[in-house]
Amino acid sequence: MDYQTIIEKIYRDIQPFLSQGSVADYIPALDRVPLQKFGMAVQELDHRLLSVGDAEEYFSIQSISKAFTLILALQLIGERNLLKRVGLEPSGNPFNSLVQLEHDNGIPSNPFVNAGALVLADILLSHSTDAYGLILDFVRKISGNDQIRSDPAVSVSERETGFRNAALANFLKSCANLDNEVDAVLDLYVFQCALSMRCVDVCQSFLTLANHGQSSVSGRQILSLSQAKRINALMLTCGTYDGVGDFAYRVGLPGKSGVGGGIAAFIPGRLSVTVWSPGLNKNGNSLAGTQALEWFTTQTGMSIF
Amino acid sequence: MDYQTIIEKIYRDIQPFLSQGSVADYIPALDRVPLQKFGMAVQELDHRLLSVGDAEEYFSIQSISKAFTLILALQLIGERNLLKRVGLEPSGNPFNSLVQLEHDNGIPSNPFVNAGALVLADILLSHSTDAYGLILDFVRKISGNDQIRSDPAVSVSERETGFRNAALANFLKSCANLDNEVDAVLDLYVFQCALSMRCVDVCQSFLTLANHGQSSVSGRQILSLSQAKRINALMLTCGTYDGVGDFAYRVGLPGKSGVGGGIAAFIPGRLSVTVWSPGLNKNGNSLAGTQALEWFTTQTGMSIF
Amino acid sequence: MDYQTIIEKIYRDIQPFLSQGSVADYIPALDRVPLQKFGMAVQELDHRLLSVGDAEEYFSIQSISKAFTLILALQLIGERNLLKRVGLEPSGNPFNSLVQLEHDNGIPSNPFVNAGALVLADILLSHSTDAYGLILDFVRKISGNDQIRSDPAVSVSERETGFRNAALANFLKSCANLDNEVDAVLDLYVFQCALSMRCVDVCQSFLTLANHGQSSVSGRQILSLSQAKRINALMLTCGTYDGVGDFAYRVGLPGKSGVGGGIAAFIPGRLSVTVWSPGLNKNGNSLAGTQALEWFTTQTGMSIF
Amino acid sequence: MDYQTIIEKIYRDIQPFLSQGSVADYIPALDRVPLQKFGMAVQELDHRLLSVGDAEEYFSIQSISKAFTLILALQLIGERNLLKRVGLEPSGNPFNSLVQLEHDNGIPSNPFVNAGALVLADILLSHSTDAYGLILDFVRKISGNDQIRSDPAVSVSERETGFRNAALANFLKSCANLDNEVDAVLDLYVFQCALSMRCVDVCQSFLTLANHGQSSVSGRQILSLSQAKRINALMLTCGTYDGVGDFAYRVGLPGKSGVGGGIAAFIPGRLSVTVWSPGLNKNGNSLAGTQALEWFTTQTGMSIF
Repeated sequence: MDYQTIIEKIYRDIQPFLSQGSVADYIPALDRVPLQKFGMAVQELDHRLLSVGDAEEYFSIQSISKAFTLILALQLIGERNLLKRVGLEPSGNPFNSLVQLEHDNGIPSNPFVNAGALVLADILLSHSTDAYGLILDFVRKISGNDQIRSDPAVSVSERETGFRNAALANFLKSCANLDNEVDAVLDLYVFQCALSMRCVDVCQSFLTLANHGQSSVSGRQILSLSQAKRINALMLTCGTYDGVGDFAYRVGLPGKSGVGGGIAAFIPGRLSVTVWSPGLNKNGNSLAGTQALEWFTTQTGMSIF
Repeated sequence: MDYQTIIEKIYRDIQPFLSQGSVADYIPALDRVPLQKFGMAVQELDHRLLSVGDAEEYFSIQSISKAFTLILALQLIGERNLLKRVGLEPSGNPFNSLVQLEHDNGIPSNPFVNAGALVLADILLSHSTDAYGLILDFVRKISGNDQIRSDPAVSVSERETGFRNAALANFLKSCANLDNEVDAVLDLYVFQCALSMRCVDVCQSFLTLANHGQSSVSGRQILSLSQAKRINALMLTCGTYDGVGDFAYRVGLPGKSGVGGGIAAFIPGRLSVTVWSPGLNKNGNSLAGTQALEWFTTQTGMSIF
Repeated sequence: MDYQTIIEKIYRDIQPFLSQGSVADYIPALDRVPLQKFGMAVQELDHRLLSVGDAEEYFSIQSISKAFTLILALQLIGERNLLKRVGLEPSGNPFNSLVQLEHDNGIPSNPFVNAGALVLADILLSHSTDAYGLILDFVRKISGNDQIRSDPAVSVSERETGFRNAALANFLKSCANLDNEVDAVLDLYVFQCALSMRCVDVCQSFLTLANHGQSSVSGRQILSLSQAKRINALMLTCGTYDGVGDFAYRVGLPGKSGVGGGIAAFIPGRLSVTVWSPGLNKNGNSLAGTQALEWFTTQTGMSIF
Repeated sequence: MDYQTIIEKIYRDIQPFLSQGSVADYIPALDRVPLQKFGMAVQELDHRLLSVGDAEEYFSIQSISKAFTLILALQLIGERNLLKRVGLEPSGNPFNSLVQLEHDNGIPSNPFVNAGALVLADILLSHSTDAYGLILDFVRKISGNDQIRSDPAVSVSERETGFRNAALANFLKSCANLDNEVDAVLDLYVFQCALSMRCVDVCQSFLTLANHGQSSVSGRQILSLSQAKRINALMLTCGTYDGVGDFAYRVGLPGKSGVGGGIAAFIPGRLSVTVWSPGLNKNGNSLAGTQALEWFTTQTGMSIF
C-alpha cells in the first residue's frame, strides 16, 4: 500500500475518535477550534508531500515551536553552553512543574518543559538583535511558507492567562537563569507558541530533522549531524509531555506535540509525518493524532521498535 | 533587677555579637544599614515603655508586617473564610518555597510564609477601598505614631528584585488563589514590607497582642480573644522562618521576625518586647536580637517554658 | 472553681464527643478499644493528683513514649551529639513521610516524627547494655508506678504491620544514620510504643517536665533546666503531628499525643494534665482529648497565649 | 567494514577509557572486579555471534535482569494487569528514590526503577510455584546457556547491605503493592540481580527482543509483537537510569544497563549488541561500554536517529 492510500484510510477510520478528546481550555483562544478538525501530511526524503483532510488549515503550533527555538539556540551558542542552563533528561514531572526547578536550583530538566523553553527564549533574546524576526524568518525558511505568522489573538490570550509560565519565568530569574526581563522572555515565548502553521508546513520543517539536519528546502545543513541526533534523541525521550513512554510504545517515533493538537513526528533518514486534531488525551497530546500515528507506523512497519 | 537595668546590661553585653550577623543582601536597599545598630524596647501592660540603644531609629519592618495584615484580614473576613485560602500549620519548608504550594494546589501552609502573606494582601485589596490607607492607618493607630510611612526606596528595590515573590504570586494566581492582579498584589506586599518603624512603635503595637487583642493605645478591642489567641499560637509555631524550633527553645516566646533585623515578641498577659539589629543568623532572624531576647527571658524568668 | 470541679464538668460535657472520633485502624491491636473511654488527670506542682473517668485504666501510650526516649537520649549523649543525627524543627510533612528524609539525606526533622524516634531508639541501643530495661526502669521511676509494662500483643501487632516504619528504618540505615541492626531498632521502637500506662501515670511523669526537669517523685534533677526547656519547646512546635498549629491555638500548651488516644500536656512551672480517649481526629490526635484540654485551659485561664 | 573488524578496532581504541570509570562500591562483592575487563558481542538476526575481548567471561548482570523479569511478568499476567501496579513512564528521579513512590502512593513510575522491579519480583512469586526456577530456566533457554547461575556471594552481599531496596520494599508493602513477604521479595530480587552471564549470553538473549519477541534459539514466539514493542520502547525511555537522554543521544539504541558494567542494546529487526566493562560513569552506566556502543552505532550508521 502506498502512503497516500494509507493516510486516506486513516482519515476515514479516525472519524469516531475526533469527538473523544477535549480542547485545552486553559488557553481561551484555543477553546473555539472545532473538535472535528483532522489533518495529516507525510513526506519522504526526495519525494513530494502527501496530505489528507485539514492538512492545509492553519493551527496554533504551541509547544512544537520548542523544537524550532532549540535548533536556533544550538546554532547561536552551541550545546556546551546550552547545557550550562538546561538539562537534557526526561523530567518525570508535569511540563509546568516548579518542583523539579526548585530542587535543581533553577536548571530545567530539558528544553521541552516550559521552564526549559523559557530559557531558550532568553538565549534568543540575548544573542540576536531581533529574536522575533529570527524565529519568524527561520520557520518560514525551514517550511518554505512565507505566509507563516504568529496569531496575536492567541499570544495575547496566553499572556493574559499564563500565570504558571509567569511563575516559572520569575523563578528562573530569581535563580539567575534568565538574562533578560521576565516580561520580554514571556512575550517572546507566547509569540513562538502562537505561530500558526499548517500540517504541510510542519511536516516540511521536520523533514530537515529526518534529513539529519540538512534542509530539504534550501539544501543547507542547518544543524550538524551531532546536533540533529541530539534533538532527535530529545524528542523521543522528552517530546510528548507526560506521555513519553506511552507515545514511544504506541507510535515508536521521535516527535514533538503541542496543546494546539499538532504532533510532528519523523523517521530519521526516511520521512516526516505531521498530524493535527485539536482534541487532547489526558497526557495533553492530540488523541486522534496519536491514534493516527500509531496506525501509520503499524501499517507501514515503520516504528523504530 | 528592674527591666531597665536588665536591658541596659543586655545592651552592653550584646556589643561583640553585632558584627557576627550578615545583612540580607537580596534586598539592595537594606544592604546599607550599619551592622552596629542595636535597639530594644520593653513595655509591660499598664506600665510605661522602656528602651535602650537605637530604639528610636526607624528600620524596615519587612515580615513583621505580616502580623499586621493578618490582624486586618481577620477583621475583614474572619477566620472561617481565611482558612479557605491559607493554612495555619508550620511549613517545614523555606519561607519562599514553591514546593509546598504546588503540592497543596496553591494553598500556602500559613500566613507567615511569603505565599500566605501574598494571599493576605489580596484579601485586603478585595475587601477595602484603599488597602494602602488601611494598612498605614492601622499601624499608625496601633503604634500611636502618626509619622509612620512606607519607604519607597525599599519597596521599589524589593519590587525590582523580588522575582521569587513574583513567582509565588503568579503561581497563586494560576491556582485561582488571588482575586486581584498579580502586580497589584505584589505592589501592596512590598509597600507593607517597606514600612519603617522604630522599636518603640513595634513594641507598642504588639502590646495589643500581649493584651489579648485590646489596644493599649485606644483601649479598643481590635481583635476577639479567640483571634488574639490564634495569632499568638501562629507566631510561636510559624513566626520565625526556618528557626521556629530554635527560637522557641532559646527565647520561648511567640514572636515575629523580619529580614530588616527586627523581632517583635511578647508574653501574653504581661509584656511586649522588641529588638532590632540588622545582622542576621542563618535562619534569617536577627542574630544579636535573638541573643538579646534569650538573655531577656532567662534573666527575667519569663520564658513560657 | 477548683480543678476537681472543672474536670468533673468536662467529663460530663465531653460525652457527646466520644463517639465522633475514629480509632487508629492501622494498628490491629488498638482497634478493639471502646470509643466510650475517657480519662483525665491533673496535678499541680506540690499538690496531689486529681482525676476523673477512666484515668486509672491502662492504655497504649504510643508516640507519647517519644518524649521519654528523648529525655533518655539527651541524658546519654547530650544535645550537641543528638543534633548531629536529628533536627529540632517542625517538619510540615506527615509523621511517617519519607520525602523530607530523602531530601535531607537521612536526617529526620525532629525527634517526634517516626524517623526521629527510630534514631533515638538506635542511640539507646548503642549507649546502654539493656535499652529495654533502661526504658522500663525510667518510666516506672518517673511515674512512680512499678507495674508499668509493654504489651506484647500490641508490639507484635505493630511489628507485623509496621511496613512504613520498616521503610523509614531501612532508609535511615542506608544513610548511615542507624548504628544497630534495623530489626533491633524496630523491635525497641515497638516496645516503647506498646508501653501501657494510665492517665495518672503519664500525668505524674510529665509533671517532671512542668517542674523544669526535677522529678516530683524522687526529687532528682533528671534533666538540666536547659534540656527541659528544649523538650518543652519541641512539644509545643512538633508534639502533635500535623495538628501542631491547631493544637497550639485551641489548647495553647506544650504536649505530646499518641495514636492510642492519650495526650500529655503541661504548663511549665505549674501543672501537668493528661487526657485519654481513643477516638482520633483527622490529625491523629484524640478528638475528645483535644476538646477537653481546650476547655480546661479556657476555664482555668491557663493557655500560654 | 564488517562487524568483526569494527568491534576489534573498538577493542583497541577503548583501552585508555577502561581506567576512567569507577566500580559500584555499594555492592561489596562487585568491588573486586578488575577495571581492565572489556568484552563485546554482536549478533545479527540469522547470523552467527561475533565477539571480542572478555566476551566469554561471566559478570553480574544486575539490573539487566529487570528486562528478563519484565518479560516473565508480562507472560504471566499481561500488560493490563501489570499496569495496575507499575507505570511505564520515565521517572526523572534516581533509580532508588522514594519521593516519586510516596507521591504516587506506592505505584513505581516504571519497571526499571528498583521499586518497579520489586513489584515484578512480587508478581513472579505470586504467579509461579518456583519463581527462582522460573527465572533461571528462562535465562538459560533464552540465552542457550545451561550453565548460567546466580552467584550467592553477590546476592548475600547485596541482601546484607541493600537497605535502600529494603526501604522501597517496605514502603511498597505499606501501600499494599506487594502481596508476598517483604523478605521473600527482596530475596528473589537479589537472586535475579546476582545472575552471572557472559556478553555472548546476554547478546543472544536480547536478540529475541530485536527479533520482535521470537526466540532465535528455540524459534518460539515468547512475546507478542505488541509486548516486544512495549519493552523496546521502555528500554529506550527508561533503560539506562538517570542517563536516558544522554544514552539515547550518544548511542541511539534501546538498551538496558546494570551496575555490574554490562549494557545490552539492540536494533529492532536487525541485531543485538552487548558490552561489558565494570567501570561506571556518573549515571551508573558502564563508561567504556557506553563509549564502545557510541562508536559502534556511529561506525555502522545504525543509530535509530
